[in-house]
Amino acid sequence: MLTLYDYLDSGNGYKVRLLLALAGTPYRLVELDIDKGETHTPEFLAKNPNGRVPALELSDGAVLAESDAILFYLALGTTYWPADPWLQAQVLQWMFFEQYSHEPNVATPRYWLRHGHLTEARKPQLAEKQEKGRAALQVMDDHLARRDWFVGRGATIADLALYAYTHVAEQGGITLAPYTNVNAWLRRVAALPGYVPMDARPDAG
Amino acid sequence: MLTLYDYLDSGNGYKVRLLLALAGTPYRLVELDIDKGETHTPEFLAKNPNGRVPALELSDGAVLAESDAILFYLALGTTYWPADPWLQAQVLQWMFFEQYSHEPNVATPRYWLRHGHLTEARKPQLAEKQEKGRAALQVMDDHLARRDWFVGRGATIADLALYAYTHVAEQGGITLAPYTNVNAWLRRVAALPGYVPMDARPDAG
Repeated sequence: MLTLYDYLDSGNGYKVRLLLALAGTPYRLVELDIDKGETHTPEFLAKNPNGRVPALELSDGAVLAESDAILFYLALGTTYWPADPWLQAQVLQWMFFEQYSHEPNVATPRYWLRHGHLTEARKPQLAEKQEKGRAALQVMDDHLARRDWFVGRGATIADLALYAYTHVAEQGGITLAPYTNVNAWLRRVAALPGYVPMDARPDAG
Repeated sequence: MLTLYDYLDSGNGYKVRLLLALAGTPYRLVELDIDKGETHTPEFLAKNPNGRVPALELSDGAVLAESDAILFYLALGTTYWPADPWLQAQVLQWMFFEQYSHEPNVATPRYWLRHGHLTEARKPQLAEKQEKGRAALQVMDDHLARRDWFVGRGATIADLALYAYTHVAEQGGITLAPYTNVNAWLRRVAALPGYVPMDARPDAG
C-alpha cells in the first residue's frame, strides 16, 4: 500500500490527497506537524532530504517528493494525465507556474497568517506577495475565460495542483470575488465525483 | 523552425538553449530584455500572458512557457527524458525542487546583484535567500555523493535544469567551493558533447 507523509493543512499535500480520493486509490496517511519540526527529524530526512511534505512512499520503500512530481506519477494511465505530448507539456507548464508564480505568493501569506509566522521582517514581504498572488490569479482568470479546465477538455493534474491553494487563498488575505472565471472553475473542481475537502483523512479502510 | 523567446543572461532560458545545443536542434532566438520591459509588451503577453521568458513557439504558432515544461517537451524521445515512469517522476521531482527550493534562492540573489535590483527593502531578504540557496546546494551535494547524475545513469533534463543557475551561483554571492560533489558534476555537464556556455547564441544556420 502507498504511504503518504503529509500535513493536513498543507495545500501541496492536499493536491495529492485529492487525486488519490478522485482515483479511489487507498493509502496510509502519516501526519507530520511542520510547526513542531516533525519534517526535520533524522528519520524523515532519510526519506526526503529536502525536509518537506508531501512525500510518497511505495510498498518497496522508494520515496518520491515534490507534490507535483507525485501528482504526475499517480496520474499516469488516468485521464488526469493526458495522452497527447503537447497537452502533457501544457499540464506541466501550469504546474510549474503553480510552484513558481502562484504557491510562493498565495500559499506563503496563508501560512504566515494561519501559523503565526508573520514576523516583523516579513511584514513588508506580505503585501508584495499578495500583489504577486493577485497577478497569478488574474493570469488564471484570463485563461479560464475561454475554457472550463486549464488544459484540454477535462480535469487534469494541472487543475488539482492549482485548486489546492487557490480555493483557500482568502485565508492569506487575497479576496477571490473579482476572479469570476476562477470561482466558476473552483465549483467545477469541487463537483468532481469523489471530491474530498482539504481536511478529510482517508478512510481507515 | 522553433522560435525561442529568451534573454541571454537568464538561466531559465539557458536550460533550454543548452538542451537544444546538446540535441543539435536548430532554432531561431528572439532576445527580449527583461530590464527594459520587453517581456511585458502587448505582443509578448499575447504569447505568454505570464510575461516571462523563455517561451517556445512552434512553427504553427503554438506557444509553451515555463523553462522546465519546455525541457520536457523538447526531451521527449531523447535520453534526456528516461523511458521508465519511476525515473521520469524523479526527473520531475528534481525539476520542481529546482523551481521551488533552488531558483528563488540561487538565481534571484544573482539577478538582484547583477542587474541593480537590490533595493533597501530587499537587503534583509538577500541573506535569507542565500542561506536557503546553500541549503539547496547541500541537498544536491549529498545526493551526488553516491551518483554521477541526478537520476539514473546518464544526464537528464533534471541535470540541465539544475546546472543552469548552479554554475553561476557565485554571481549571487554563494561560494561553490564547499560543494565538492556538485563541482565534479558541474564538470561532467560541461563535458557533454555539444555543450555551449550560457552566453552563446545559436548559429545563424
